[in-house]
Amino acid sequence: MKTLKIASIPGDGIGKEVVPASIDVLKTIADVHGGLKFEFVDFPWSCEYYLEHGTMIPEDGLKRLTDFDGIFLGAVGNPKLVADHISLWGLLIKIRREFEQTINLRPAKGMRGIQSPLLNPKDFDIMVVRENSEGEYSSVGGTIYQGEDEIAIQNAVFSRKATERAMRFAFDLSTKRKKHVTSATKSNGIVYSMPFWDKVFKDVSKEYPEIKTESQHIDALAAFFVTKPHRFDVIVASNLFGDILTDIGAAIMGSIGIAPAANINVNGKYPSMFEPVHGSAPDIEGKGIANPIGQIWTAKMMLDHFGEEELGAKLLDCIENVTGAGYLTPDLGGNSTTSDVTIAIINQLKT
Amino acid sequence: MKTLKIASIPGDGIGKEVVPASIDVLKTIADVHGGLKFEFVDFPWSCEYYLEHGTMIPEDGLKRLTDFDGIFLGAVGNPKLVADHISLWGLLIKIRREFEQTINLRPAKGMRGIQSPLLNPKDFDIMVVRENSEGEYSSVGGTIYQGEDEIAIQNAVFSRKATERAMRFAFDLSTKRKKHVTSATKSNGIVYSMPFWDKVFKDVSKEYPEIKTESQHIDALAAFFVTKPHRFDVIVASNLFGDILTDIGAAIMGSIGIAPAANINVNGKYPSMFEPVHGSAPDIEGKGIANPIGQIWTAKMMLDHFGEEELGAKLLDCIENVTGAGYLTPDLGGNSTTSDVTIAIINQLKT
Ligand SMILES: CC(C)[C@H](C(=O)O)[C@@H](O)C(=O)O
Ligand SMILES: CC(C)[C@H](C(=O)O)[C@@H](O)C(=O)O
Repeated sequence: MKTLKIASIPGDGIGKEVVPASIDVLKTIADVHGGLKFEFVDFPWSCEYYLEHGTMIPEDGLKRLTDFDGIFLGAVGNPKLVADHISLWGLLIKIRREFEQTINLRPAKGMRGIQSPLLNPKDFDIMVVRENSEGEYSSVGGTIYQGEDEIAIQNAVFSRKATERAMRFAFDLSTKRKKHVTSATKSNGIVYSMPFWDKVFKDVSKEYPEIKTESQHIDALAAFFVTKPHRFDVIVASNLFGDILTDIGAAIMGSIGIAPAANINVNGKYPSMFEPVHGSAPDIEGKGIANPIGQIWTAKMMLDHFGEEELGAKLLDCIENVTGAGYLTPDLGGNSTTSDVTIAIINQLKT
Repeated sequence: MKTLKIASIPGDGIGKEVVPASIDVLKTIADVHGGLKFEFVDFPWSCEYYLEHGTMIPEDGLKRLTDFDGIFLGAVGNPKLVADHISLWGLLIKIRREFEQTINLRPAKGMRGIQSPLLNPKDFDIMVVRENSEGEYSSVGGTIYQGEDEIAIQNAVFSRKATERAMRFAFDLSTKRKKHVTSATKSNGIVYSMPFWDKVFKDVSKEYPEIKTESQHIDALAAFFVTKPHRFDVIVASNLFGDILTDIGAAIMGSIGIAPAANINVNGKYPSMFEPVHGSAPDIEGKGIANPIGQIWTAKMMLDHFGEEELGAKLLDCIENVTGAGYLTPDLGGNSTTSDVTIAIINQLKT
């Protein structure tokens, strides 16, 4: 019996609805499979936890997570309760950084039964490999002077190590896909970090002579996500560019509510973390209408990560059978509930 | 007679086709108006000029431009002839910076007869005010160490002066529009420059109590350009975020070939520069099929800038009559030529 110990952090808002739903799905998968078992331990870390304890996670919080095989996170943040920089940097980004989850992997693809906002989306199927540890999100910088002379300086730090790592990850992935890697750059406007990024991309691409490559400036690339998303296979992007591209990716899929993500620790020292692209959506919390697909698809990425790619493929197929049959939450134009969609997926898995 | 002295720089590629076309349009406007005259002086600065002279513009180039009322630029760059950082920073960005064109103004709106790639674009009409002098494009930074330890650092510099200036420009503009300003931020991930940006936005918004405001993170905002562009009126954005948003804006309009822009010197010390969003498109150079609308609409922005807003509105209306009548170049799915579209607009102006 293969047992996977998973730390589950539902977090805030709809995270508390879609995480339990997805755990039901994962348990069904384990039952159907027979040889696989999940052990879930719940952690109530959230903005509410913060209001009670003054920290998003306890002092030994990270230590308590280290021995898990994976972390299954819903969503964090509720600006009405706790300022974003406290909730996000105190949990989400803290875990990404301290557990060296240096790669953020996010697919975008057309889904059966889900209406894209594009007139002619064709069959797009993109995987964005986002550098997840540095770049524009490096918290290096500060402000100087007061009043009208005030200046803020933000340093984007790009190391060869992290840049190569993200790029190699992208190239490795593309060998199992369409053998095409696009690098997101902006070296025509950003003249130190991006020419460096381009240079490393050129170097790494030499290690993969069988992979076709291209570089696109982020402005053009963002536009291409709207006009010709089917042109792309694997995209490697900096922390910020990956963030922007994957939200556009979610938009062209039809809803941010269905977009999944994995924060991957590539050196195996710490657990990886699986969290959908969407936030905690406090406006629809408690209504039972949150789309569970982002979180359930995230569970598929977790299965893939643990080598259960067949099960992962099956789960995605079941999701598409359910959307294809018209089980759609309001964000997708339907009137199904979180539980309608979840139960339909569970039933699909059992057939 | 009001006479406007305009320096025209066709530049590279299709710039050499759409600039003369647009000058014909502007001359027609002057004729029809009667009380307005344009004096154009042509400057052949381009990648070809560089190959002959070793610089994109002559040493006294900027000095020769100072006494003009405006600069009408086509497109610069042809990576097959000259590296981008030489052609762009040697001309386009040089003029933006040295002539203190601190605001880059770019509209995005649905156009009659032009198919948006969005299924349901509704009636969007956005004006992006892009800070054009600093931010992520500050050329401050460098690299350190060699080989596997190499690190590139890029400084984004945000001054209160330039940030306030862009924001005030946006607020002033919005008083003549729908009284709604959206600030593009990313303060949840970029923790020095963007919280500073937010703070200045809050300060400036107090000077305009009648204007509604909101802040959106750039990832969500980019996605909203795809899902609900009609939600926005004026958007104020940093150099990079404005660059990305306006390319998405051009995409949802239907083609980068129709998107105009103005680089505005707000202190009146130097001429402003009018250049479309598109590049030199060397792949279609010489075929006579370049879309002239981006450049012609840019001429409309120049008319607006010189206080000829009625003429500007008339020109835009003529453009839409022509697209509405089906005169579309191949980028818009038609088979009209540059000259077909230009002549149709000129005929519209004469009626
Ligand atoms: C060519 C490039 C440097 C430029 C920019 O990013 O400013 C272009 O994309 C634009 O938007 O005018
Ligand atoms: C909440 C925010 C800091 C985060 C990011 O930008 O990384 C989010 O947008 C994401 O993409 O996971």
